[in-house]
Amino acid sequence: MKKIAVLGYGTVGSGVVELLTKNHEKINEKAGDELRLAYILDLRDFPDSPFADKFVKAMDPILADEEVAVVAECLGGTEPAFSFLMSCLNRGISVVTSNKELIANKGAELLAAAKSHSCNCFFEASVGGAIPIIRPLHRCLAANEISAIYGILNGTTNFILNKMLSDDMPFQDALKLAQDLGYAEREPSADVDGHDACRKICILSSLAFGRHVYPESVHTEGIRDISLEDAAAADALDGSVKLIAFVKKLDDGSILPAVMPMYVPHENMISRVDGVFNCVEVCGDAIDRAYFCGRGAGKLPTASAVMGDVIEASKHHKTVFSQFWVDAGTQNFISGVEKLVCGVMIRFSAAYNAAEISSFASEYLAKAGHPDEEIAAVDNACLITVPMNQSERQALLDAFRQKGYLIAHTLPVMDA
Amino acid sequence: MKKIAVLGYGTVGSGVVELLTKNHEKINEKAGDELRLAYILDLRDFPDSPFADKFVKAMDPILADEEVAVVAECLGGTEPAFSFLMSCLNRGISVVTSNKELIANKGAELLAAAKSHSCNCFFEASVGGAIPIIRPLHRCLAANEISAIYGILNGTTNFILNKMLSDDMPFQDALKLAQDLGYAEREPSADVDGHDACRKICILSSLAFGRHVYPESVHTEGIRDISLEDAAAADALDGSVKLIAFVKKLDDGSILPAVMPMYVPHENMISRVDGVFNCVEVCGDAIDRAYFCGRGAGKLPTASAVMGDVIEASKHHKTVFSQFWVDAGTQNFISGVEKLVCGVMIRFSAAYNAAEISSFASEYLAKAGHPDEEIAAVDNACLITVPMNQSERQALLDAFRQKGYLIAHTLPVMDA
Repeated sequence: MKKIAVLGYGTVGSGVVELLTKNHEKINEKAGDELRLAYILDLRDFPDSPFADKFVKAMDPILADEEVAVVAECLGGTEPAFSFLMSCLNRGISVVTSNKELIANKGAELLAAAKSHSCNCFFEASVGGAIPIIRPLHRCLAANEISAIYGILNGTTNFILNKMLSDDMPFQDALKLAQDLGYAEREPSADVDGHDACRKICILSSLAFGRHVYPESVHTEGIRDISLEDAAAADALDGSVKLIAFVKKLDDGSILPAVMPMYVPHENMISRVDGVFNCVEVCGDAIDRAYFCGRGAGKLPTASAVMGDVIEASKHHKTVFSQFWVDAGTQNFISGVEKLVCGVMIRFSAAYNAAEISSFASEYLAKAGHPDEEIAAVDNACLITVPMNQSERQALLDAFRQKGYLIAHTLPVMDA
Repeated sequence: MKKIAVLGYGTVGSGVVELLTKNHEKINEKAGDELRLAYILDLRDFPDSPFADKFVKAMDPILADEEVAVVAECLGGTEPAFSFLMSCLNRGISVVTSNKELIANKGAELLAAAKSHSCNCFFEASVGGAIPIIRPLHRCLAANEISAIYGILNGTTNFILNKMLSDDMPFQDALKLAQDLGYAEREPSADVDGHDACRKICILSSLAFGRHVYPESVHTEGIRDISLEDAAAADALDGSVKLIAFVKKLDDGSILPAVMPMYVPHENMISRVDGVFNCVEVCGDAIDRAYFCGRGAGKLPTASAVMGDVIEASKHHKTVFSQFWVDAGTQNFISGVEKLVCGVMIRFSAAYNAAEISSFASEYLAKAGHPDEEIAAVDNACLITVPMNQSERQALLDAFRQKGYLIAHTLPVMDA
């Protein structure tokens, strides 16, 4: 028998308790031992809960109980979660967390503590909710040199962008609907300004490239500037606007992580991931591309990922080193967004002749060294998929403007 | 340092050797030790290979070398692969295989041998090529009760079905193209008659439900009967024809595994998986649905999965029990395809009035206890998504025939 403690009895924590109770037999079978819920830490009182006798208000009883094998942290936020988990790791108790803010900011410290005490800090639930992505990335794909990761890592913004297009709904109305449905917080900044997706791409970047990537060093744009017209133009050009969190390995050995709305062509599976689903595309030298999709949030989906880790942590006492990165500074390792090479979707603020837009762009590109490019265009937008660096993109836009075209908005093109 | 032996130097085996050489540093870092290629077993001679000094023609030197930690089997077929791997496991040497025929037929025996000698038999590469599916299924999703798995598990048939629709190409021509491109064998039966997909769903079923599912007990249909007209009708009804390998848990506790062409609605991601890609959808009580997509075959994609397992096996000597099933007979465990409850796509052999087809079907279903069903119809086909058992489907078809409709072909509807 191994005792499990759950920190926090909010949405995720109560989901973990529910799943541990509901699928007890299955879980014990997979763990090869009985996993017994022993403690739930929450400052609130739950006198009517069937688990009322498990509640504690401080870490002390959990840390004092030598039978506790795994602590699952579902509190959210950096503190007190960080202090609580460090106190566990320093006693050699493995921890599992769904807390992306914590891992994005303190992952290297937690992993170092786990390593020095020969236990584990697992965080499958911190990225992509129910989707298995952390373990597949560092274990199943361990033999690959990862070249890029692209993902829809925030279901709320994906829901909003979908609604804008499918129901012809402006951003503010779609946001309000998401709030009414409980998908978005009253204070929606973490979602709509890209911070949530940023934390998640930090975690994936750190894992894939072995050095901690902090949120402050990642260019992050949200979706507030995306209009109905942008969504409609992308659709007319056989694609979608998606908030994409990505990291690419550049030729100079550095990595370029960023979060921004992008045009995604329909040929890419990510373009068609709808609603609150998340999807992660991993590019590696052996696999080419693999996609992982599923529910990015929610009580039981997130609890599924937490419990998968709890089962794993209960079986493996030795530190899993493939899931490890170091805090090694950012110098020469992280490139800024000015290094991004990509195509561009241009939306104009007036209607023009689509054939003329297309032929102007083709001729311009031919002169710039890209002959025979066929440019998709509609009357108020066009799509240039030729990868260009920042100054090449700027020169192209300047050329359009000089020709008299009024540009309303541009979107980078996801090139995977 | 740990020695690795590779059995078979065909496409997959040479890919494993290539990957192990190319990404040596990365692999050693993930393994936490040097993994050194020590032996390649092949009956052929490769005098000009850079690995010429590693070739052996029998198992003896591999089995005699106590430094061999993992043997990767890439021979294909049941024998001599089975005997070779049993001889390794019986000496406590962990094995890794890409061989779906072997695992589908002998998995329970190999796993039992691994268990009794405290080592591992891993087979991530046997299903879905590059796609991480085995480990995510039994580890990341370990806390879920799995209710169903659906997948495109054979890229060759998926390529053929795609070509039929996209290039208006009859089955025989699309098959010939697949053969010319090297996707299909000269003797294509394993692919086009569904046997390859059958082996893979056997492996996933065994893993998800804990008892060995043998290919002989799985209803298996291929795609030879699929016509251009079927593909076009599905497309007109907002879906695709896909060769689906699936397993569903039924209410009576039994499971229903099968392979058959199905109509898949475009809303489901599987409908849009094109070309030689594979995709697996896993349904569980906590995750709802998760999708895993990627290259289902090919030298380096398959080698990536093999090497992921090799790294894992080199680190874990203790048997991984979550990846285990027993040989427990099929009685009362496997249900036949006559128990399948699903909708049906009906294609007629003449053109009718779509509105009349639709209203006839709606009225029939209302009488049969399914009121207010709106039935999608085009002039030569219609789609009934109401789940019906075999006799209900038969009665519906009989009603159409009695009304004078000539039915050319029917396809079950994938309901996930």
